[in-house]
Amino acid sequence: MSSDSTPAVRPGGTIGIIGGGQLGRMIALAAANYGLKAHIYAPDADSPAFDVAAARTIAAYDDAQALAAFADAVDVVTYEFENIPHETAAVLEEHAPVRPSARALFTTQDRLTEKTFVNGLGIATAPFRAVDTVADLEAALAALGRPAVLKTRRFGYDGKGQRTIRAGEDAADILAAFKGAPCILEGFVPFRREISVVAARGVDGAFAAFAPVANEHRNHILAVTQAPAPGLDPETTRAALEIAKAIAEALDYVGVLAVELFEVEGPAGRDRLVVNEIAPRVHNSGHWTIEGAQTSQFAQAVRAVCGWPLGGTAIPAGHRVEMHNLIGDEAETWATLLAEPGAALHLYGKGEARPGRKMGHVTRLIREG
Amino acid sequence: MSSDSTPAVRPGGTIGIIGGGQLGRMIALAAANYGLKAHIYAPDADSPAFDVAAARTIAAYDDAQALAAFADAVDVVTYEFENIPHETAAVLEEHAPVRPSARALFTTQDRLTEKTFVNGLGIATAPFRAVDTVADLEAALAALGRPAVLKTRRFGYDGKGQRTIRAGEDAADILAAFKGAPCILEGFVPFRREISVVAARGVDGAFAAFAPVANEHRNHILAVTQAPAPGLDPETTRAALEIAKAIAEALDYVGVLAVELFEVEGPAGRDRLVVNEIAPRVHNSGHWTIEGAQTSQFAQAVRAVCGWPLGGTAIPAGHRVEMHNLIGDEAETWATLLAEPGAALHLYGKGEARPGRKMGHVTRLIREG
Repeated sequence: MSSDSTPAVRPGGTIGIIGGGQLGRMIALAAANYGLKAHIYAPDADSPAFDVAAARTIAAYDDAQALAAFADAVDVVTYEFENIPHETAAVLEEHAPVRPSARALFTTQDRLTEKTFVNGLGIATAPFRAVDTVADLEAALAALGRPAVLKTRRFGYDGKGQRTIRAGEDAADILAAFKGAPCILEGFVPFRREISVVAARGVDGAFAAFAPVANEHRNHILAVTQAPAPGLDPETTRAALEIAKAIAEALDYVGVLAVELFEVEGPAGRDRLVVNEIAPRVHNSGHWTIEGAQTSQFAQAVRAVCGWPLGGTAIPAGHRVEMHNLIGDEAETWATLLAEPGAALHLYGKGEARPGRKMGHVTRLIREG
Repeated sequence: MSSDSTPAVRPGGTIGIIGGGQLGRMIALAAANYGLKAHIYAPDADSPAFDVAAARTIAAYDDAQALAAFADAVDVVTYEFENIPHETAAVLEEHAPVRPSARALFTTQDRLTEKTFVNGLGIATAPFRAVDTVADLEAALAALGRPAVLKTRRFGYDGKGQRTIRAGEDAADILAAFKGAPCILEGFVPFRREISVVAARGVDGAFAAFAPVANEHRNHILAVTQAPAPGLDPETTRAALEIAKAIAEALDYVGVLAVELFEVEGPAGRDRLVVNEIAPRVHNSGHWTIEGAQTSQFAQAVRAVCGWPLGGTAIPAGHRVEMHNLIGDEAETWATLLAEPGAALHLYGKGEARPGRKMGHVTRLIREG
């Protein structure tokens, strides 16, 4: 419940979602389960989320008039991606509650701001330097060593907007390919694996996390999530959850967030964890929760942004969960997956199976022992 | 897969659904999970299923032109209720595959035809007589005794269109209230409880049933479903599944059906079971499958009517499931239910909580032992 103990949104109300991809679509489906209407705002008339929404706005993300009309028509605004311009969030906030807040958005959509914020909480990240010029980059490489990863501060995803710089490579040449975008150089972190925590914080400050999971990537795109992360010791599990909670509280966060962490060599606990990045939204590494947890991350996001109590996050006793993404033409295996008992297939209703495009996923709830 | 081994419908295709209530809505949500579009046909502009559909037709069920245009626009037609006029089904079948078939519809939408069909398979029903006149009713009461239940042959649901006739009551008076509708008198069956089997049959003849469940009614409306039916012995469980399979096969059924059974005194097995009625569609007593089974009844219906393989029906090992309907103002408890960890709340997006109206349900997956 919200601090004034009145839920912000009642069943029958409308949740506005910025973005029309699979995440918006799955938030809309979860909202429908609670008797809410979804209003999707996206620029592309083919957006897959439109197919499950009670209302649609097809307009650009910088169309102030359309944004204002959209926010006026809904009870709360949330979003499926973090690359929302400041001006867009400002317009929305004038007309409706935006959850997570513009502050959470601005802190996490810029790698430099985000890492500075995380370090400010006493939580480790990769070492980093801001890079705007060749001189910046050369100084940063001298400080952080090679290999190091040059990334755009904003708008990167799935390995886009980043480039590893190895010994002997020409810094100026590499920076030129970034065409003047503000950048960050991140020192190399020798990690054992990536884990992530998907968690939620309510309007009342309640916090609920799903079990930390282990993620495997292929070509910089998430391929497999295992929940819970196999073999993660209890102390490091606890530390991962504490990190997610500390971040959520420092942001006065309302909604679902994901914290990607590197598990490194070191003593069990926080020393074994380095924050990679924060996503202020539902996350691919939480898709397993649809079948694998008491409340899905999408339902949890709806609960949080509506000012409702958070749901349980437990995995059914005696089970573990695996989620495999279906990237590009992997979605062509749909008939085989449908024929596998216990494989829960999800397809996102996207038209063209371009290489690297997330077309769907499959979740398996697996009995242990 | 269909008999020609080509799936009738591919992801990206459109499933047409006749009826805009909660069942159509939940079929549409399940279709969306598989990357299908849903096109809902319903006469009421406020139909809750419209809010989750990619396309909507608002038209009467006897509007031949609208029906034809609708069926032309979809890859397969299914429905959420069985009271579809013969003419409607005939128009639809000229333009698209209708699954379950018009034959299944016509057999099950009339209590007289249905019971005659079931008895023809050697499966017990309540004793019954057709009633069109007072003379018919008096003869039927003489044959079947009192109490007996007078029901309309068609269009009844949730106790509507039926009346128990007790000792001393005037048959002519009671029949007059039915205003000339064709009726059936059913002899009283002294049953211990109602159980039901929700099952599916594919285009290829594959059959898959969920565990038989026990149902409790209040005011003739389903209140609670327990899955599996507590204490149902293995032989009677097997017999219940065999009855559902025999009915599905005799109808050359494609889709999800529900068979309501009375459990009576008698030796374990088929002798303990009497068919009450068949619903040629997803059924309220199958709502528990959304969280409680590998595949929900709605996903299973989509698989079946699309010509896809059926999904697994198992309940997570070590668990049982309870589903409670939220009728009328019971839906006002939504905030309390949201605060209960492990309670999965579903609301249907209906405007007004009229008495007796199904507004939502709540499912609890419960660890055994």
